[in-house]
This record gives sequence, C-alpha cells and structure tokens, in this order.
Amino acid sequence: MKYVRIYISMGDKMNKLKPKALAFHKGGKIAIKSKVKLNTINDLSLAYTPGVAYPCLEIAANADNAYKYTSKNNTVAVISDGTAVLGLGDIGPLAALPVMEGKCLLFKKFADIDAIPIVLATKDIDEIIRTVEILAPSFGGINLEDISFPRCVEIENRLSASLNIPVFHDDQRGTAVVTAAALISASKLVNKKFSDLKIAIMGLGAAGTSIAKLLKRMGVGKIYACNSRGIVSKRKVLSPLIEQLVNKNIIDSFDDYHKDNIEEIMTGADVFIGVSRGNLLPKEAVEKMSDRPIIFALANPDPEISFTEVKKTKAYIYATGRSDYPNQINNVLAFPGIFKGTLISGHKKITEQMCINASYAIAELVDDNRLSPEYIIPSVFDDRVVSAVSEAIILSEDEKCDIE
Amino acid sequence: MKYVRIYISMGDKMNKLKPKALAFHKGGKIAIKSKVKLNTINDLSLAYTPGVAYPCLEIAANADNAYKYTSKNNTVAVISDGTAVLGLGDIGPLAALPVMEGKCLLFKKFADIDAIPIVLATKDIDEIIRTVEILAPSFGGINLEDISFPRCVEIENRLSASLNIPVFHDDQRGTAVVTAAALISASKLVNKKFSDLKIAIMGLGAAGTSIAKLLKRMGVGKIYACNSRGIVSKRKVLSPLIEQLVNKNIIDSFDDYHKDNIEEIMTGADVFIGVSRGNLLPKEAVEKMSDRPIIFALANPDPEISFTEVKKTKAYIYATGRSDYPNQINNVLAFPGIFKGTLISGHKKITEQMCINASYAIAELVDDNRLSPEYIIPSVFDDRVVSAVSEAIILSEDEKCDIE
Repeated sequence: MKYVRIYISMGDKMNKLKPKALAFHKGGKIAIKSKVKLNTINDLSLAYTPGVAYPCLEIAANADNAYKYTSKNNTVAVISDGTAVLGLGDIGPLAALPVMEGKCLLFKKFADIDAIPIVLATKDIDEIIRTVEILAPSFGGINLEDISFPRCVEIENRLSASLNIPVFHDDQRGTAVVTAAALISASKLVNKKFSDLKIAIMGLGAAGTSIAKLLKRMGVGKIYACNSRGIVSKRKVLSPLIEQLVNKNIIDSFDDYHKDNIEEIMTGADVFIGVSRGNLLPKEAVEKMSDRPIIFALANPDPEISFTEVKKTKAYIYATGRSDYPNQINNVLAFPGIFKGTLISGHKKITEQMCINASYAIAELVDDNRLSPEYIIPSVFDDRVVSAVSEAIILSEDEKCDIE
Repeated sequence: MKYVRIYISMGDKMNKLKPKALAFHKGGKIAIKSKVKLNTINDLSLAYTPGVAYPCLEIAANADNAYKYTSKNNTVAVISDGTAVLGLGDIGPLAALPVMEGKCLLFKKFADIDAIPIVLATKDIDEIIRTVEILAPSFGGINLEDISFPRCVEIENRLSASLNIPVFHDDQRGTAVVTAAALISASKLVNKKFSDLKIAIMGLGAAGTSIAKLLKRMGVGKIYACNSRGIVSKRKVLSPLIEQLVNKNIIDSFDDYHKDNIEEIMTGADVFIGVSRGNLLPKEAVEKMSDRPIIFALANPDPEISFTEVKKTKAYIYATGRSDYPNQINNVLAFPGIFKGTLISGHKKITEQMCINASYAIAELVDDNRLSPEYIIPSVFDDRVVSAVSEAIILSEDEKCDIE
C-alpha cells in the first residue's frame, strides 16, 4: 500500500512512535459528559418527559431557541468520507475515524467546542452533500475534513450555499489562513510588501489552490504554481478548476518555460510554498530564488525539502507542518478560533474576509521584537491564539458567503 | 396547536414545571470530554499527525480494529426525524433535539454509553434510511427515536437488514420489553399463565403493535385490539400492517362485535394495555374484565384512565408511564442495558429473543416476597437493572435478525 511507504520512509523515529500511538488511541479518545445532574425522579421529569416538552415547544415556536435550549450552540460536526486522510490517502471512512476523533479532541482542547466525528460511507458528491444537509439541524457548524480534491471544493461551496450554519473545509481554508499568517510575519521580517512578492507554489490540491486564492485576495503580486503536470501556463490544457484560477488571475500563467520544472518558477521567487509531497524540492532551486528566500515546506510528515538540506542553501526563513522544527504551520492555530468566533457571534457563513482577518490576528501575536527567522508564527500552545482569532471572526461582517 | 392543548390539560402542576424545565435545558445538556491528556507537543504528535496514522492503518488492514482504536465501541447515535415526539407529535427535527439530548443523557447516566443526538431534516423514508446507512460507520449502534408509525417499522426493519451494527427503535421494541417485564410479574401475582391470558390493547401505533408481537411470541393466549378505527376484525378492511398482524395471529380477530367499542374486547379480559391517548378508558369497561384485572395505562402524560378513576373500579394492578404513581413502565429500564449488552458482546442485531430475555431479566429483579400490586417492576434507579439486562443480551445467541 502506497501510504504505508510514506510512513516507513520516516525510519526508526516513526517505528518507535507506533506502540505509543496505538496505546494512546486504544478505546477511543472522546466521550460524552452530562452538563446537568440526574439523580432523582424529579431530575428525570425535568430532563425527559414531561419537562422536556417545554424547550421543545419553545423551539417549535421559534427555531432560534434551539441555540438557547440545546447543545447546538457549541457543537460542531467533523465530517469526512475518508478519501484524503493526512498522508494516508483514500483509506475509507472507518480507518479515517481516529483522525476525526483526534480533530474533535483538538476542538475541545483549544476552544472548548464539543465536536462530533462523523465518517460517511459514500464517496458520491451528491450523497455527501445531501447527508450533511439532512443531519445539519443538530449542529452549530460543519467542519469538513480530509475529503479529496477537487471534490472538496464543490462540496464546501454547495453546502455553504445551502446550509444556514457555517461550513468550513479545514484542509482548504484552514491551511490557507495559517500559511497567510506566517507569510505576513515572514514578509515583514524580510521587509518586502505583499504586492511585491513573487510566490512559487508546489502542489495544487485543496491546500495549494486555497492558499493561492487567499494570498491573491490579500494583495500578493505574482503567484506561479506547478504540480505533477508541470508548470501552470495558458499554453497548456488545464483542468477546469485550475483554468478557472488562471482566468481569474489567482494563479498567474507562466508561459516562458522550457524545461517545465520547479526551478523555472523558483528563479527570482521570494517565497516557496510546498503543499505536495516529501523531498521534491532540490537545493539548486532554492539557490535560484531572490534574496533572503522564504521556504514553507508543508508536506507531512516529510517536507518538500528537509531541515538538513535547507540549511545548506541560502534560505532565510524555513517553516514546516512539523512540531519538531521551528515555525510550525499548524491548522490548529486557526480552526478552533474560527469556529468559536462563529458560534459566539452567530455568523452563518465563514467568508474569505473573515479568513483574512483571522490571518492578521494570528500574525499580530508575534511581537516585533521577538520576530526572527525561527519565530514567525505563535506556538500551537500559545493560549492567546484562540481568543485572538475568535475575536477577529466576531468583529467581521457577516456578509454573503464569498468563497469560490 | 394540538400538542399544546395536551400539556395545558395537565393544569397547574405542569405550569409550575415550565420555568424549572426551561432552566434545566438552558445551554444544552451534553458535552464532549477528552479521554486522553493533551498538554504537550508530544501528546499532539500522538493524538494527531503523525501518530494517528498507526490506528488508521490498523483499521484499514482490519475493520474490526475500529472497535479497538476509536470510541465506536461505546458510541450510539440517537436518531429522529421529529415526526412523533413524546406527546407532542410532529414538531420537526430541531424542536425534537431537546428530547434526543435527554435520551443521550439517559444513556450516559444509566449505562455509561456515549450517545450522540442526530436529528434529520427529512421525512422521506428512503432518505432517512440512506442517511443512517451513510453515517453508520462512526457508531456502535443506532437508537431510532420518535419516528411516526408505520414509517418507523419499515425504517427499523430495512436498517436492521442493511447495517452490521444493532438498530433499535426504542418506541417500538423498548416499550414492548418493559411492558412484557411488568406483565411477567403481574401475571405471576394474579397466578395466571401467559397462555391463558386474554389481553385488550388500545392503540396500534409503534408501541401497540410491538407489544402485541412480543407478547404473542412469549405465548400469550389471546390479544384483541382497537384503535381510532374501532376493534380489529377480519370483518373490516384493515390497514396493510394491521392486516399482516392479524394474518400472522399476532392480533386475534374479534368478529362478534356490535357497538364496536373498547367495552366489547374488555369483557372477560385479564389485561388492558393502553398506548393511545389520555382518558379514553371508561370505568365501566374495567368492571367488565375478568377477576383481578391488570391495567397498564401507558399514555403520557395523561393515562387512558387516571389513578383516581381506577381506584373506583375492581382493577387489581395499575401501572402507568408516570413517575408519580407506583409501577412506572419506563423504557429507561430496557434500552441502556440492551445497548450495553450488544456493545460488550459485539452482537450485530437485536433479535426478538434478546428482547424476551431482557424482559425476563427485568422481571426477575422483583423479589417474590416484595411482589405486590404496587411493586411489579423495578425502579428506574434500581442499579441492578442495567447489568441484569446487558447480561441477558450478552448471553443471547446472535442469530439472524428476526424482527418483522
């Protein structure tokens, strides 16, 4: 199995992790707890029949009362079809369940949100959308997770349009928010304006396309990109979704290519953002970049270029998705606060502007006098993060959904 | 609204309950708790990437490992479309949510099962079934709740056939199990054999039809029944489901009727079981019963005949669904232990024989020397109940599902 290979490639370090990891997950990671006491017949008559009729009638009279008299006000569904699980790929819904439970744990730990893992035994886009629409009344928000690209784009867009609760595919927009936050700090450190930046993105899946969308909306000058089919250019026949991004100038067409490889779009680039696979970025490509290059090598568990390799180049700032190197670009900096903010404010959509506001809120937590190549983004355990992000969401306008 | 009237009919007692009940439900009744610690980067790397890959791979290799490495082993979905909520009727999914949360609370309190409330924004039978099939992988069992009759029968049957986890519509079979348990004790007290009993059932919805099925399977002699269309008889055009029950001799055809009312099937009956609406049973009908009559008046909140009225008749044993009278026939005596037993044993179906075994397990908790007209069924707070019921389920054979 292909996904096994990825993990074995990490060698001894990962093999030692295995027994600890299995012990950690044994018996599952989450449970239900009661928020009320239930010890007497009298308690029972309040919790269930006949007392429960009163909150029911209040909600029947006014649907908004569901937020007042049920746990909907603090409950998010973490939903996946198991088609694009972490570095593991399409392992199916049941095998994806430990990841979804893990995500629910993060929701609880970082934002005290009650999240419920729901894995879906279908890959059909229409069935997924209809299922989520049908089960939505129980929840205050929907976090889509690990759904393969480009299906995830259609699923998030259609659900955002049809539901009256926030829908957020974390692998798309969550990753984009945190990457943008890191880039705000990094570009400040190298004293370059967003409008002057030339960025090379490697990988055009859920993360790559969302990062391009958010950064262009934030004013980045040029974004070139490549994936397994080479450099994105109008000279080529592109997939419909990529073609759309080129037509909207979200990805800039790079037409003067000859060898059609990463080195061509890296020449003179200020920033590299990798959201593809491990060890795809050669040292030579880094050397062709502009002065003080910024390298975000976000593939997990193996970055596009390793810490050891990047040290041999002129790279000035290096960030990854890993917790064992400096500058961890981790979604947990964004999604807990984003959902917390929408649950508190009652916003029905998570707009692109909210995502931008969240990015700036995260970046602002990095003090100017601490800002350095090894510190461009707060730690995931920085307890200021969730309140800063949720505050940014609460203060955002609840406009019509503008994701594309 | 019709359902409001039902509650107002209870008068002052209910009106005083309202503010207490609303305060009790405010903010919701359940939350998520973590079963693991998550305080360091190291914990994070076990709970989420990269450590989480190991349980995922174990499950991808063998689906049964989902019970080992996720909370599926102790998680039940409480699912409703809100079409038949307690005494309130078709109030819709959102207004049904407080009841489903209440049910989850009972699962936690009585069996330490983690139950998740899921209300469905559809009434279409095929959509409900498909939705439950799609979300089933996350759960170790499905408790269907408050779905209108006869749709609930088709939904439970089809899901029991298609899913490989237990499916149980509590309003059907849960009610039947507890009613049967009470009847085992009551018939012992009046020294009548099941095979000699003549029973009159009033109400042929989810509960009435399931009670008839279970009791006939347990060997009851005669079961006559009536509903709003009068006495069930082969002389009439019956609804397809009732006709099926008559053809299978689950409900006995009562053909020699003249006035077509409850008094005719009550003449000489040993047992009355009401699962219809309040105050429908006249005192005169009780007087026509056999010696030492058993009255189970289970309509909620108003029984078919009130405590005050029944005292004026020759009724020997009186049970209701209410907690403020003796002999409360409450589903909470059955469903927590039934699900606990299936989760522990790994049974994939809840068979009719398991239901019978559960009934006997509950009845056996009533000591012969304490058995009296005021004590035929254990209290809901009797902490022997859940283990007795789950033990009965665990010891049952896991045969092919035999519900009809």
